[in-house]
Amino acid sequence: MLRCALCGHEVGGDALRCPKCGGPLQFDYFEGEIQQASRVWDKFADFFPFKLENKYSLGEGNTPLIYLRRLSHRLGVEIYAKYEAMNPTWSFKDRGTYLAIHYALLAGYRKVGTVSTGNMGASVAAYSSLAGTDAIILTSREVSQESLIGMEIHGANVIVVDGDYGMLYHRALEIGAEKGIYFINSDNPYRIEGYKSISFEIADERDADYIFVPTSSGGLYRGIFKGYVEMKRCGFVERVPQIVCVQASGCSPIYTAYISRAEHVEKYENPHTLAHAIENPYPPSGDAVLKILRENKFSCVAVDDQAILEAQRELASEGLFVQPASASAFAALKMKISRGKIERNSRVVLILTGAGFRNIGHLDMKRRICKLEELERCVK
Amino acid sequence: MLRCALCGHEVGGDALRCPKCGGPLQFDYFEGEIQQASRVWDKFADFFPFKLENKYSLGEGNTPLIYLRRLSHRLGVEIYAKYEAMNPTWSFKDRGTYLAIHYALLAGYRKVGTVSTGNMGASVAAYSSLAGTDAIILTSREVSQESLIGMEIHGANVIVVDGDYGMLYHRALEIGAEKGIYFINSDNPYRIEGYKSISFEIADERDADYIFVPTSSGGLYRGIFKGYVEMKRCGFVERVPQIVCVQASGCSPIYTAYISRAEHVEKYENPHTLAHAIENPYPPSGDAVLKILRENKFSCVAVDDQAILEAQRELASEGLFVQPASASAFAALKMKISRGKIERNSRVVLILTGAGFRNIGHLDMKRRICKLEELERCVK
Repeated sequence: MLRCALCGHEVGGDALRCPKCGGPLQFDYFEGEIQQASRVWDKFADFFPFKLENKYSLGEGNTPLIYLRRLSHRLGVEIYAKYEAMNPTWSFKDRGTYLAIHYALLAGYRKVGTVSTGNMGASVAAYSSLAGTDAIILTSREVSQESLIGMEIHGANVIVVDGDYGMLYHRALEIGAEKGIYFINSDNPYRIEGYKSISFEIADERDADYIFVPTSSGGLYRGIFKGYVEMKRCGFVERVPQIVCVQASGCSPIYTAYISRAEHVEKYENPHTLAHAIENPYPPSGDAVLKILRENKFSCVAVDDQAILEAQRELASEGLFVQPASASAFAALKMKISRGKIERNSRVVLILTGAGFRNIGHLDMKRRICKLEELERCVK
Repeated sequence: MLRCALCGHEVGGDALRCPKCGGPLQFDYFEGEIQQASRVWDKFADFFPFKLENKYSLGEGNTPLIYLRRLSHRLGVEIYAKYEAMNPTWSFKDRGTYLAIHYALLAGYRKVGTVSTGNMGASVAAYSSLAGTDAIILTSREVSQESLIGMEIHGANVIVVDGDYGMLYHRALEIGAEKGIYFINSDNPYRIEGYKSISFEIADERDADYIFVPTSSGGLYRGIFKGYVEMKRCGFVERVPQIVCVQASGCSPIYTAYISRAEHVEKYENPHTLAHAIENPYPPSGDAVLKILRENKFSCVAVDDQAILEAQRELASEGLFVQPASASAFAALKMKISRGKIERNSRVVLILTGAGFRNIGHLDMKRRICKLEELERCVK
């Protein structure tokens, strides 16, 4: 049963927001058994809203959980990276897109859409081409060339929208409802179900005390939380870890509401951060995240661009080239440790949401040129 | 035992080429059993030259084998994509780098190096940072900004070498021997062992009649062949599939030697192709590939840039954004089918070697801009 994540109102059909309060939707908790299988979708099949067929899959999920040895030693905690850059279009979005497009086909849609400045657009474009549906990607003027190509290469209809990007989410849902286009936006309920798979995979490998989640619209955060709650209800884990909501200081609407004890998340004016993948000034699941944070006494932090860039370099020094938004998780961990908020030897998982290559404009380069005949001298 | 892939001379220590004939080196065939495990490295542990520890791993391998439904129906064969863009640095190179850097550490090296214009450089830089070794990446003036950043972000010492790129492979080995730097070039014997894992994974999932392998230095081709030979010797597969060597017409030294029945692969003058990842004019394993092709009656084809770009779009229309070099495998399959060389309903595997984002300069874009208030009209 689908219901509003805020007011609990039951919703039928393929509504995408609560008709009563406008809140985001969510499936009731699933229960079941763990199956013998290798794909997370088969292993946890009881926990997804319908039977997931392999033919709409590009092999998403089952990403590695990598122990960061040197950073762990340095900081006195056990740090694991959930490396989502190894998905088919190189971000965690693929997990949600797989379920959402699969559902769109079951529901008879021939057109899907999304609103995205990068990862989600590439993901919807790719899965839509696999499924044979038409895809419409609405994006902003700030989107990078790398991101646009990642959408267009799959034949999607990409429209750069000139106007308030925060409004686009809601306008897209309206237009989609009129024109029979299923818009798979950031916190679509099937996305939430897809993102749960990250929690299933982590818990399958090890216990965690903390999970650090870069948070923009709130869809990923809600998915990871729901996955753990379902596992706890079924006795697969003893407790839900502390799930830390991480935002960039330059665009931190949830953090702002959290520390000011506001009732609702308000639109963040003049957002500005290098971590574009978490630069949503008006997160559609903001209030739903705030509710989880408060009910569970979870924490929320904001980290600035300098700390994010330093964290990006540090993760790269352990072999992982992630986007700035992903690096915010590590920057937040360091901040929490420096404030004495993380017990020694805690087991911490960083959700490294996507690959570093879609936003490279900010990266400095020290290029050394050497003539072949002088190579011996150049190589120290 | 390590021996020359051409003359069979036994070689000890950490020689990187045959001291007698200059040929590339190769381990003797391994034999063993398949273990119960999920990582390919553990499942086929008997077939690797030493025990592979997880701490030098970034989660490489175990990539999906994706059935391409529409392209299969169109062409009348069963086409599967081995999607190597889902490795940690987004190409198959990671499988070889994992083994080679692991070996370098066992052998006591503190410095590693490679010669690369893209994927291999990023891979060696990433694994070297994980392992804590120093990395020296020698690259050419033609390397893309995306590729350079992929190397430098991990703290590697990147040197752009001005001079004959074909010579650099050999010069690097000489300088490495002098200075105690272990150069993990394209056909390093540990790379070959790492690339075998692709064959193990394919055979573990299904029988194949043909494998199409984009071929540059020859290391990948040799690895895939060796993997199948070992499995046949142990009775895991009934036969070795036809392994098709694919080159770009604009840089096709192996193909040229193959069709002209030459004894040796000669340097290809004035190479020019968009498929930069297979643009090696003087492949160090060229003669070794030629030997395999002739002894096994395998075929070799060359495809032009136009066919490669069309193939890149077609693969993207099934959800897979690969680099032009990878797309050459599909272009070659279409060419072979059009010539009546592939039986109907054959099972074909394309090795899609790496992700499309490192070379995007050639991709056209049709960007549509629309004002938010006119969005309804723009969305058809």
